[in-house]
Order: sequence, then C-alpha cells, then structure tokens
Amino acid sequence: MEEHTNRAFDADLSALARKIGDMGRLDEKQIKDAVEALEKRDAALARNVIQAEVQVDALQREIEEKAVATIARRQPVAVDLREIVGALRISNDLERIGDLAQNIAKRVLLLGDAFPPSPVVLQLDRMAEIVLSQLRQVLDSYERREVAAALEVWRKDQEVDALHTSIFRELLTYMMENPRNITFCTHALFCSKNVERIGDHITNIAETIYYIKEGKPVSEARPKADMTSSGSLPS
Amino acid sequence: MEEHTNRAFDADLSALARKIGDMGRLDEKQIKDAVEALEKRDAALARNVIQAEVQVDALQREIEEKAVATIARRQPVAVDLREIVGALRISNDLERIGDLAQNIAKRVLLLGDAFPPSPVVLQLDRMAEIVLSQLRQVLDSYERREVAAALEVWRKDQEVDALHTSIFRELLTYMMENPRNITFCTHALFCSKNVERIGDHITNIAETIYYIKEGKPVSEARPKADMTSSGSLPS
Repeated sequence: MEEHTNRAFDADLSALARKIGDMGRLDEKQIKDAVEALEKRDAALARNVIQAEVQVDALQREIEEKAVATIARRQPVAVDLREIVGALRISNDLERIGDLAQNIAKRVLLLGDAFPPSPVVLQLDRMAEIVLSQLRQVLDSYERREVAAALEVWRKDQEVDALHTSIFRELLTYMMENPRNITFCTHALFCSKNVERIGDHITNIAETIYYIKEGKPVSEARPKADMTSSGSLPS
Repeated sequence: MEEHTNRAFDADLSALARKIGDMGRLDEKQIKDAVEALEKRDAALARNVIQAEVQVDALQREIEEKAVATIARRQPVAVDLREIVGALRISNDLERIGDLAQNIAKRVLLLGDAFPPSPVVLQLDRMAEIVLSQLRQVLDSYERREVAAALEVWRKDQEVDALHTSIFRELLTYMMENPRNITFCTHALFCSKNVERIGDHITNIAETIYYIKEGKPVSEARPKADMTSSGSLPS
C-alpha cells in the first residue's frame, strides 16, 4: 500500500477497534448488571439489561458495515485483511456475549421470590467475576495485539468450565433434596450455562487475536473442563 | 458493473450459494442424527455427529474467505453487496445450528441407560421435525430468493417456541414427581432448549433473506411464544 492509503487504512482500522472497545465495555456492563440482578432479584435492573441489548446489536451492525466498506475500498491483504476479518469475528462473539447476558436477565424476571440456595448464587457470582476479568483481559490484549496475554485468557477458561461443572452438580443435588428447589435450580442451571458460554466466546476472541497476529489457527486443542455436557455426572 | 464483471460476480455468488447449500444439508443431517441418537440412545451415532462438526466449521471458514475475497475483488454495492454480507450472516447462523446439534449429541453420551419419560422424547422428536422442515424451507427460500416463503418460516417459529415451553413444563413436573428423573430431565431440558435455539437461528436466516431482497430489516416484531425465559412458569 502507498503511504496515504496506509494512513487511510489505519484510520479505518482505529475506528473499527474503537467500536469493538465500546461493544466490549457494553458487554462488561451487561454481564455485571445481569448477575447483580440475579443476586439481588432486582427486576428493574434486569429490565435495563434486556433493553440495552439493542445497543449491542446496533454496534455489531456498525462494525459489519465498516468492515465491509473497508474491505471494498482498501482491498487489504495478509495481516491487514486478517485485521478486518478479525474485527468481524470478534464483533460476532461480542454480540453473542450480550445475548447471553440478556438471557440471564430474562430469567431473573421469572424467579419471583423463590428462595435461592445461597451457596450456589455465591458460586455463580465467583464464576461471573472470573468471566468479567477474562473479558477485560481479552479486550486489553486485542487493543495491544498481545498474543501472549490472549493465550493466557484462552487457557484460563478451564477454571470457568470447572466452576460450571461444580455448580451443575450442586444444583442437581438441591433438586433431588427438595422438589421445591426445582424451578429455581432449573433457571440457575441455565444461568450458569450462559456464563460458561460467555467464557467460550471470550476464548474465541483470544483465538481471533492469535489468528490476526500469526495468520494461522491456535494449534493446541482448546482446554475443556466442562464435564456437564462432555463427561460424567452424578446420576 | 460491466457485463464481464457481472458474469464473474455471478459466478462468485453461485459458488457462495452452493457452499451455503452444502452447509445447510450438513446441518440437516446433524440435527436428524443428533435427535435420532437421543431417541435411540445410540452412542455411536452421537459420536458421528460430534466428529462431523469440523466439516461445518470448515465450510463456514471457506464461505468467509470467499465472501471477503469477493468484496475485495468486485467491490459490490446495493443488492450485490447485501448478497455477500447475507452469505456471511447465513453461514454464521448455520455454524451455530451445527454447534447446537453437536451439543445434543454430547448429552446423549451422558444419559447412559437412565429411562426416559417417553412422552417427552416424542415431543422433542415432534419439535425436531418442525425445525427440520423449517430449515429445509428456509434453505429453499434462500436458493430461490423467495421472501414470502422466508417470512412464512419466520412466523412459524412460534410453534417451535410453544412446544419448547410445553416440554419445559412437563419436564419440571417429572422432576418434581420423582428425584430419579432429575438427571435425565435436566439433560432433556438443555436438548429442548438447543432445538428451540436452532429454530431462532433459522428465523435469523429468514430475516437475512428479507434483508438481501428488501435492503431493510424485517419490520414486524419477531413472534415469540417461548415462555420459559420470558413469561410465566409453574412454580
């Protein structure tokens, strides 16, 4: 690319990265608020999360438009092309993360005043904290294009999966102990699964950062410790 | 565009549409096999579904590459651009559908020989049949770019949501009746949710067909009859 084309491309790329940063911060707030709404049974906060989802969707469409326009105008190749394709992929994962946070908020509205088995809520909270720190770190790695930090996030997802497995087992036990727990625990199961899936999308983002920088997929198999849909369970 | 550019663009577009057709047929098989594996507790079939997922992912990457190359080479505008962006969006939804079918297959491996409350399995089967017919119709509408047929699919998703709500309630009842049902029913809950979410991705595809042809989003609010995460539940 010529000098001035390079500058124009860099400006396009910065605009894309800025929008991804905005989307990521919105997702952070959505996860935080959804889990707080779950903990405190705060229906008003849950409704806020549900309404804010349109902003996440709008940002994704803006990123898609901007990415497509940049490909058409600048015809980038190699790492420049991977930057744009990477932005498209990351915005998809961020949109899914927003969607999963919204799903948690929707469940809050169903729980009414059923009493939660409190240790489970604490564990869910712990899981959400890890996921939030993972999200911050992956967004940071994207901003600085730091592959090592991204791979660290990628590996740490095992902790989230392990916590989900532990919550899953605990919830099954509560259900078996007392049928009155079943409705609450069922919703809590889905909430825990949603947080675990947010973790998966964060690892996708880490993989995309690797792909942008290295031009090839992460070669190690993704670490997996979620045993609830791929391993053994108490029966 | 000039005549020969038009022909070249049409060839690119046909190649993309062909790959989307391949991906859709693969998804059909994945859903069919996953649900059959669930019904018959066929672990070998479930493992096939899990292994075939790499093919779905590979097709998505091919479509992404082809779409990006076409945007850079042909710099399409208006409906031509929407065709390519539409192919990208549809391949994302088809990838998610494959993933959800794979999740069902993974749960089959966990169920062991726990006896399934058979009416639930029949209802799940019915739900999967509707979803399969929806998928066929939406792929057909895409091939023919028929907006009316796509909107029909879009509206019919309510049936899938209503069936999921009914299965969800029934499963909760089984769990409350007998704690021995809890493990099986929990997995069945997730399977039903996965089928319902496959339905959502099919409606996304219908919306994309509308967007390609009309250049604007579907204006009616999406019909929703899934009450398990947005309405009332037996407590």
